[in-house]
Amino acid sequence: MRIKICDYNGAEGEIDVYRTNQWEELRGVLEQMPLHLKASDQAGIRGNPIFDPVGTNHHIKEALSSLGWRANIPIPNQFSFLGTDVDFGKAGVLCEVQFSNYPFLLNNLLRSELFYKTELPLSGEPTGIVVIITKAHMFPASNSTLYYEQAKNQLDELARYNVFDIPIRLVGLFEPKGEPITVMFTTYSDPRYSRTVEARHERQCILQSGKTSAGRSRIDFVGG
Amino acid sequence: MRIKICDYNGAEGEIDVYRTNQWEELRGVLEQMPLHLKASDQAGIRGNPIFDPVGTNHHIKEALSSLGWRANIPIPNQFSFLGTDVDFGKAGVLCEVQFSNYPFLLNNLLRSELFYKTELPLSGEPTGIVVIITKAHMFPASNSTLYYEQAKNQLDELARYNVFDIPIRLVGLFEPKGEPITVMFTTYSDPRYSRTVEARHERQCILQSGKTSAGRSRIDFVGG
Repeated sequence: MRIKICDYNGAEGEIDVYRTNQWEELRGVLEQMPLHLKASDQAGIRGNPIFDPVGTNHHIKEALSSLGWRANIPIPNQFSFLGTDVDFGKAGVLCEVQFSNYPFLLNNLLRSELFYKTELPLSGEPTGIVVIITKAHMFPASNSTLYYEQAKNQLDELARYNVFDIPIRLVGLFEPKGEPITVMFTTYSDPRYSRTVEARHERQCILQSGKTSAGRSRIDFVGG
Repeated sequence: MRIKICDYNGAEGEIDVYRTNQWEELRGVLEQMPLHLKASDQAGIRGNPIFDPVGTNHHIKEALSSLGWRANIPIPNQFSFLGTDVDFGKAGVLCEVQFSNYPFLLNNLLRSELFYKTELPLSGEPTGIVVIITKAHMFPASNSTLYYEQAKNQLDELARYNVFDIPIRLVGLFEPKGEPITVMFTTYSDPRYSRTVEARHERQCILQSGKTSAGRSRIDFVGG
């Protein structure tokens, strides 16, 4: 996929000086990943292709784990009110993949800020930066799920008033429109809740500039 | 009800010097309020009396409004990702009543911090302090709803690492155990979701020290 980034609290310098290798690994994984799609189970658009968070998470986890990243890092008891685990970490870099409902962004930010200030070595070293991965608004997706442009608006407001100190790199996952792209389409055994894969195939599709009613790109498959 | 308080970021000084009248009004409302109960609709304890957030909110709103507090103060568009309105405000004091699921506490804190730093005059003046009202753990209540002791633990951790700057007074609503207390018992037209009151009566009950399986006090009505 193609990525956009937006940096806060000196994230660019932190990466350039201290975390170049970790960022290059993350960037490579994301840029080599195909767009993952599944069929919607939502009334009105049932069967239409939408962004597949389970498939995307699975791909990122496999790829980062093979590069020595920790996955599902347990959160210490004193901070259990902020969740059970952090998605990924390596040598001072924490990474949260957030395709869920938009309020989770604040939860991710707040706990990252605490891990930063407490210097907990969750990634093997004290946290120096958090990378938050989101999908672009362009993709049809489940209702109320976070997207990059929305996350950027929230972070812009929070940064304007210096609520957080931790360096943050926000990453958005995009695809080009109007040209064939290779995607990974997964069918799950229960269309709504299951993580059990029934079938997973590479397909070709085109993201159309003509928008859906929700302002997303329409996804047309190429060659049946 | 009886109240406990815990102060963060200089809240005590802020109240003593600048916000004494507003605090005395709040304290009076809470101390004169009876415990509000309703029948549970939860499997296993259906019909048992539990804490009634709707009735409590309604009582506080009526009482504060009559003292000139603003209620349901709209949140400006730029911060709409943090919700639609703040519960109450008067002359530099914001007040959030939080009986809902525990993650809402972080949302309340974060938006209060932003209103503090932006000096938005939501209460008629720039915000100087936020008062957060919670119920004690002792009361049987809906699953996963926030209680004072839990809120205190979270605030203790956040304060330890100076995540927030805004002065915060956390208030817990308690009742004495083992002696008759007057409560307000409300029956709603739909036991789970309705806010439509079918009946509201004063009753006498005793909070028993003998605990329920969830570690709450058992509530016994006195005199049928």
